[in-house]
Amino acid sequence: MTTAEPILLTPGPLTTSNRTRQAMMVDWGSWDDRFNALTASVCSQLLAILHGTDSHHCVPLQGSGTFAVEAAIGTLVPRNGKVLVLINGAYGKRLAKICEVLGRDFSTFETAEDQPTTAADVDRLLRADTAITHVALIHCETSTGILNPLPEIAQVVKDHGKRLIIDAMSSFGALPIDAREVPFDALIAASGKCLEGVPGMGFVFAEKQALAAAQGNCHSLAMDLFDQHSYMVKTGQWRFTPPTHVVAALHEALLQYAEEGGLPARHQRYADNCQALLDGMAALGLRSFLPAEIQAPIIVTFHAPQDARYQFKDFYERVKAKGFILYPGKLTQVETFRVGCIGHVDATGMQAAVTAIAQTLQDMHVLEPAGAGLSAITGDAVLL
Amino acid sequence: MTTAEPILLTPGPLTTSNRTRQAMMVDWGSWDDRFNALTASVCSQLLAILHGTDSHHCVPLQGSGTFAVEAAIGTLVPRNGKVLVLINGAYGKRLAKICEVLGRDFSTFETAEDQPTTAADVDRLLRADTAITHVALIHCETSTGILNPLPEIAQVVKDHGKRLIIDAMSSFGALPIDAREVPFDALIAASGKCLEGVPGMGFVFAEKQALAAAQGNCHSLAMDLFDQHSYMVKTGQWRFTPPTHVVAALHEALLQYAEEGGLPARHQRYADNCQALLDGMAALGLRSFLPAEIQAPIIVTFHAPQDARYQFKDFYERVKAKGFILYPGKLTQVETFRVGCIGHVDATGMQAAVTAIAQTLQDMHVLEPAGAGLSAITGDAVLL
Repeated sequence: MTTAEPILLTPGPLTTSNRTRQAMMVDWGSWDDRFNALTASVCSQLLAILHGTDSHHCVPLQGSGTFAVEAAIGTLVPRNGKVLVLINGAYGKRLAKICEVLGRDFSTFETAEDQPTTAADVDRLLRADTAITHVALIHCETSTGILNPLPEIAQVVKDHGKRLIIDAMSSFGALPIDAREVPFDALIAASGKCLEGVPGMGFVFAEKQALAAAQGNCHSLAMDLFDQHSYMVKTGQWRFTPPTHVVAALHEALLQYAEEGGLPARHQRYADNCQALLDGMAALGLRSFLPAEIQAPIIVTFHAPQDARYQFKDFYERVKAKGFILYPGKLTQVETFRVGCIGHVDATGMQAAVTAIAQTLQDMHVLEPAGAGLSAITGDAVLL
Repeated sequence: MTTAEPILLTPGPLTTSNRTRQAMMVDWGSWDDRFNALTASVCSQLLAILHGTDSHHCVPLQGSGTFAVEAAIGTLVPRNGKVLVLINGAYGKRLAKICEVLGRDFSTFETAEDQPTTAADVDRLLRADTAITHVALIHCETSTGILNPLPEIAQVVKDHGKRLIIDAMSSFGALPIDAREVPFDALIAASGKCLEGVPGMGFVFAEKQALAAAQGNCHSLAMDLFDQHSYMVKTGQWRFTPPTHVVAALHEALLQYAEEGGLPARHQRYADNCQALLDGMAALGLRSFLPAEIQAPIIVTFHAPQDARYQFKDFYERVKAKGFILYPGKLTQVETFRVGCIGHVDATGMQAAVTAIAQTLQDMHVLEPAGAGLSAITGDAVLL
């Protein structure tokens, strides 16, 4: 796989293919039929991935994924609604912050960062507070890489007659979510994640009846998904200037997604990436933060080496010089760093990243006492 | 000037240079120092164009220009403020709509679409309603291309001790605005306009003390410019995922802007474009909607030909087939179309566009009775 260096092992922006970036070499008129066709094709491809064509609308939105999450809450939760926010990391906390700023009533349920929320938790919470109208959940929490049990939680929310809003930013396109089986009012993701587009737009899959009932809810003009969707249905155009090059890149990325084999193939490649990473890092004596059964193949949190000679900044710069960009940890109690498994990279690339990490730790004289595995790795592997 | 065809004669997205688009061929880590340096360079170049380094902060924001306008009003107008919105076109109306959705008290003053707001109007309105705290103005109204007298209005607003918010979306970078002489709290523009970047981010120049006093005003998490700025000062990073490729393109576009000779050169090129367009269209018998003295050299509105054989859609598609994308009119009472003068195009390009328009009208058998000028033009000019 040819990519521009350095390779981004980060949870988005991530490494894209040359072909995806090349799609940005054209300037598109935002009023032109050809661009409208591009937008329509992006939305219909996204709905097909979700199996949501019959049940949901795809509403694209300018800005980062967080803009789309805020838009979904602002548009789909009525002003007198109440949101139960399920938290086990920074993105769950951000959901609660959005509710607070928007003035939507909410309560939170927080588990430890290595502890998925369970359907039983949600069942108990919904029994205890019948004022709750909506549940908001992070599917894969990028803070750690933990996977929350979406289908089970969705079923419980539905059984209680409540609505579900899913932040699937770092899972959509790679982890299976079937709208025919998993009931929800909104699922949110973005261009620059597992679909391997460039960042600059999000999108919300909104359940058709829920969106139709959402007129006048939104706190914002620009983020009003009801208006955004109505205008697009009427005109084929985005309501305000679209990020044309970002849309074109996502369109091209989606064509490649289909050619690769769609979701099963994307999932398998990321799972292989994740396994190659975990195996390689284990051989270096670097422990992952989460147990395997709740580790999504999206991003892995590793404990930092227990060595005074290790400093993340130095480690990061040295690994970058070898061609790989890592990601800092986001845990408050434990020193960690993160390595993404997503983007236009395969298991060979992940092994090369492990080799670069091994070489770096050797250069830094970190982990030398337990360095047998380390030497074995760096001795065998070819550096970039 | 080499560009990818067709040439966009639209008010943004517009035609960019190959070099600007080529800057999007790299994937940037949004956490990486090199990307932070890129963002810092963009902001400092933007402030230099405004002569605002001492007085204002530049706060970039994900999304389209309208997102940045909404963010400026939401952040800088306190919840108990009152906005006087000056309207002579669709973008002025949008400002009022934003105030309405955000729940900010406001009043409007509307003039005809070919009638600039005057400083005397604003003086009278501010005397009549002392509850007004902020005045919001469109510098160049893209609906028609009309230029409102910014320096005079800004002075009156200041004399009354009120604050000014300027939507300079389609003028910033091409029409002179000097923050050392023109007092304002916020001026808003975007990447894909006269700076000739690609669309996907806006930016707000916020007066330093006004921004410092704006904590807690905003109705939105994602659009809170106080938070956006504070986080960027603290970390060097964007608060939420930035549109990395759009930022890189804007950076490259700004380097070219400086190389071309900065604002005077950009202004002159657009003025030459506008004159070439007006002259060429006049020779075809096509009249511009605005008188020359209030016509900004950004976008020109033309009366549609008075001929039953003219239909905009057909005209548009035929001109597009010859390599130029025009823009529909936005007036409710008069049938018009618009032609942008901005983007990576020069007067020769504008003349070629006029030739394409002349040829198209001839093909459509439009304006034949008055077609003497038409034949003269198409006979002389070389088609693309």
